[in-house]
Amino acid sequence: MSFTIEFQPLGIRLVCGEPFTLLEAARQAGISLRSDCGGAGICGKCAVQIFSTPNKYPPTDTEKTFFTETQLADGLRLACETIVENDLKVQVPSGSVIEGQVLQVEGSQDSIQPDPLIFQKMVRLDEANLNNLASDFTRLQQASEIKSLTANLEVLRRIPDLLRKNNWQANLIIREKELVNLTGQSLLKLLGLAVDVGSTKLACYLMNLETGEVLATKGVPNPQIAYGEDIMARLAFAIKGKDEANTLHSLLMQSINQAAAELCAQIGLSSAEITDACLVGNTAMHHFFLNLPAESLAFSPFVPAVSNSLNPLSSEIGLDAMPGSHVYAPAVIAGFVGSDHLAFLLAEGFSENNRVCLGIDIGTNTEIALQNGSRLVSVSTASGPAFEGAHIRFGMRAAPGAIEHVSIDQQGKAQIQVIGGQSPTGICGSGILDAVSEMRRLGILNHRGRMDKSAPGIRLDDQGKPYFILAESDRQITLSQNDIDQILLAKGAIRAGIDVLMDYLKVKPEEIQEVLIAGAFGSYMRPEHAMRIGMLPEIPLGRVRAVGNAAGAGARMMLISKTIREKAEKLAKRVEYLELTVYPEFSMFYARGIQA
Amino acid sequence: MSFTIEFQPLGIRLVCGEPFTLLEAARQAGISLRSDCGGAGICGKCAVQIFSTPNKYPPTDTEKTFFTETQLADGLRLACETIVENDLKVQVPSGSVIEGQVLQVEGSQDSIQPDPLIFQKMVRLDEANLNNLASDFTRLQQASEIKSLTANLEVLRRIPDLLRKNNWQANLIIREKELVNLTGQSLLKLLGLAVDVGSTKLACYLMNLETGEVLATKGVPNPQIAYGEDIMARLAFAIKGKDEANTLHSLLMQSINQAAAELCAQIGLSSAEITDACLVGNTAMHHFFLNLPAESLAFSPFVPAVSNSLNPLSSEIGLDAMPGSHVYAPAVIAGFVGSDHLAFLLAEGFSENNRVCLGIDIGTNTEIALQNGSRLVSVSTASGPAFEGAHIRFGMRAAPGAIEHVSIDQQGKAQIQVIGGQSPTGICGSGILDAVSEMRRLGILNHRGRMDKSAPGIRLDDQGKPYFILAESDRQITLSQNDIDQILLAKGAIRAGIDVLMDYLKVKPEEIQEVLIAGAFGSYMRPEHAMRIGMLPEIPLGRVRAVGNAAGAGARMMLISKTIREKAEKLAKRVEYLELTVYPEFSMFYARGIQA
Repeated sequence: MSFTIEFQPLGIRLVCGEPFTLLEAARQAGISLRSDCGGAGICGKCAVQIFSTPNKYPPTDTEKTFFTETQLADGLRLACETIVENDLKVQVPSGSVIEGQVLQVEGSQDSIQPDPLIFQKMVRLDEANLNNLASDFTRLQQASEIKSLTANLEVLRRIPDLLRKNNWQANLIIREKELVNLTGQSLLKLLGLAVDVGSTKLACYLMNLETGEVLATKGVPNPQIAYGEDIMARLAFAIKGKDEANTLHSLLMQSINQAAAELCAQIGLSSAEITDACLVGNTAMHHFFLNLPAESLAFSPFVPAVSNSLNPLSSEIGLDAMPGSHVYAPAVIAGFVGSDHLAFLLAEGFSENNRVCLGIDIGTNTEIALQNGSRLVSVSTASGPAFEGAHIRFGMRAAPGAIEHVSIDQQGKAQIQVIGGQSPTGICGSGILDAVSEMRRLGILNHRGRMDKSAPGIRLDDQGKPYFILAESDRQITLSQNDIDQILLAKGAIRAGIDVLMDYLKVKPEEIQEVLIAGAFGSYMRPEHAMRIGMLPEIPLGRVRAVGNAAGAGARMMLISKTIREKAEKLAKRVEYLELTVYPEFSMFYARGIQA
Repeated sequence: MSFTIEFQPLGIRLVCGEPFTLLEAARQAGISLRSDCGGAGICGKCAVQIFSTPNKYPPTDTEKTFFTETQLADGLRLACETIVENDLKVQVPSGSVIEGQVLQVEGSQDSIQPDPLIFQKMVRLDEANLNNLASDFTRLQQASEIKSLTANLEVLRRIPDLLRKNNWQANLIIREKELVNLTGQSLLKLLGLAVDVGSTKLACYLMNLETGEVLATKGVPNPQIAYGEDIMARLAFAIKGKDEANTLHSLLMQSINQAAAELCAQIGLSSAEITDACLVGNTAMHHFFLNLPAESLAFSPFVPAVSNSLNPLSSEIGLDAMPGSHVYAPAVIAGFVGSDHLAFLLAEGFSENNRVCLGIDIGTNTEIALQNGSRLVSVSTASGPAFEGAHIRFGMRAAPGAIEHVSIDQQGKAQIQVIGGQSPTGICGSGILDAVSEMRRLGILNHRGRMDKSAPGIRLDDQGKPYFILAESDRQITLSQNDIDQILLAKGAIRAGIDVLMDYLKVKPEEIQEVLIAGAFGSYMRPEHAMRIGMLPEIPLGRVRAVGNAAGAGARMMLISKTIREKAEKLAKRVEYLELTVYPEFSMFYARGIQA
């Protein structure tokens, strides 16, 4: 008997041989679940959400005392009370983990001048009397000194009462020339929300629109993971019907709303004071948060329903914010090149200069942009989730307990570096990259990527298949031939994308002045190893730069600046999308790219 | 024992001395209720709605077979089954009346060139393929040849499915540069709805926007009458709370929606094909149909919440029309000078020339405009409902059975003319005007408006009070001193308004080139009598012209023409509102005006 427990959002899979409690399973997987009472069912801290349809885990009496009926129906259970003996997917809420998960929300520092669309203006109106019979809104327009000030009917309906209750004074919240709301007194801060909606993670930033200050940040898991780890699985679910599509949309908005509410609470305010928002994401996420139909993204030729920028009311997409406020959803480039890519390019100054520059955002789909003079071309390549730890036996995301760096000596012994410094529970993308690079350097892998069964550090399993030992302290962590194959396919896809772009724009590797790598993987990755295994072409190391969550930085910049939004509009029109599958030399580049 | 039954929307009151069925009461009041079975409770045709709180008329078993529980709860009863012995207000549905009620929807003929905001355009798109990866909306924009075409999120959400189901063809419904909707095939007709929302009556016009043809018209009673015949009573109800305000709004929209649905059905189409609408009304009606708060209209200084023109989505005001379509609500001038007045001025060419012209729309509030050169000034005067038959013992609206004209001979015998030629059931405004004018001519009334008890035609009641007999065939119809007083107050208010305007703009009566009188009363009224009793100044008779429902005509013009809407916007800015109550000479003019 053997079954697998998958812990989300960490992406850790534990293969088990015997039934035991989820609390024990989490321990074995290296996840530090809270358990103040030591698993006695008293403290209620080890809450987890299990996904099992139909639910094979009826709540115990103890669980009934900790959870409401709705929570139980949603799969909430105590890890210490739940005994598992079959395959199971478990969501670990961040509140149940002792150290918290590493969910990167940083990015390049924004250093732009705030230039927000939203401003507030306190006005005092002349009271209506028989000698001044203008309508309330007309007098408000006059007081605002914006003659062509407009307002939606919903806002107009609220003006008379507020004016009279507030002694003919009002604080106007204006978006360019639209009165989005009015309040009794000036807002302490004009709050804005920027969100980078990733497939795995939602990076949320609460900002002061007037100062450009980031007031609070929060990274939360994308709750859609319960409906599929990769985008295609979620698209497949969404296109089943309206209800399914609405479920994915609502889940997303609930998480964003909750994160935003928590961010606002941190500074003693509420979501109703969020006056503007900017949401970016890959094209599927963009369609999910706007609740646009996703059918056209699920089938070839994978075109978006809408690609231009939109400014819906926050209420139209279910975002909790100030009534009457809008959301800015920047343009997407193509079916697999979203507004997060646009935000990345914007944050890294692609709109500012014409240098020869390569931008890479590695994920299940890796977006790559190459700029040469006035031309800027983007591709998307299906690199798969190997660098995020998926489809790798001991793979996991960059979280505490993950092996992030590996070096191997002549005896085939691995030296490892673990995030958080603890004993390792798995290996993340940068660690795998190092390991493959080192194995190649030492000849443990040949140029076709096959393991040499007689090489140092290689052992053979029961069926005579080779594997490499990375660690064997508390838990043995190994790499199999299959793991290596996954990594080679991933890096081959990325390299093929880069090669196509260089071919298309007639750029030679040495001409590339800068290589910018976004995301967590980019921050941990060692460029020399990426070049050694051929994921990147040979470029002077000093030209490679990790830019963190550049998409989030771009979203923040667009949030606080009208000028930057205008640049984004122009940039979106300038970016040329190139479809790899119809590029004649793509197959050749790919075949070459997957070699070790 | 004596009690009064009031029949709406005809405005007929019947004073009863003994209990009898509503069917019988209606007969006595001259209302021809349908009654195919002769009052046996079999045909169910004499349905009426009674307003009685709490409802003192429990449904009979017979009524339970004709009405649903909801209908019974709404007060629907059979007139033949309901025996009345107390004061009661009854609404007579038009379907229960044999001849239908005279609800004028005509007006000046529109003879303008259609220039609608809405147009439709059939497009065929290039199918998405790997060599044409633009988003659905981008390709639709290109096919529309309107580069900056916009669309609301709700419409964007529907594009992909329609395009794919319709083989990449679509019929675009465009409002200037906004895609309001798209359909599989061209619409047969681009339908538009114009409504003159009167306090008493809703005049609805279904139009072909492309040809300007009026396809169907319908006048229905304003259902808010159940909450008060005059505007102040309805405002008093609306300001009780949100629920009450919503009730008045919903009732209005239900009636408009039902009328519109019937108009569409007449030409084999449905309300969902109404692509544009224009609604006008006095300022209270304007606030009710937009569901704007009415508090500021209910108390001095009576200012509107909003006076400028608005273009809400039809869904925002609950109008059943094509999803995504808008409604044009033209500007109002002041608290008691609405967009119906603007429409009247527009229809009668006040925006076109600078002639000296007086426009009057007589109602409970009478709006009067005087143009002199480039100046155009409007006032509203509280003339009361006497000319609509209210507060007059035998008063009724201009409907079959109403005495519309009266002449009196030297013997004090009245010659009458009755609408529909039948025996008279009451007297409407034009008839009362004639009667007062004739009585004054013959000295039956003195200059202070008192009846001469010894004059021919005058009789005295039990208490020695004089009254004048107009008719005494089936039913005796008389005028009392109180009736005369009501008329003198009404005409005095109107004349004072005219005098203030002439004084303010320094216009002498003989300089007025044209007098335009709107509404049903204007059509029946004899100008010479209006001048004889001093309601109008002495102006050559040929200069006085009845213009019917000019507000409806103006609404129709604005519905079908962008150019006319632009004129309306300019006209609204040009009209100067003058508040009578602060005009120094108003009291003097009023005191002079109410003399007979």
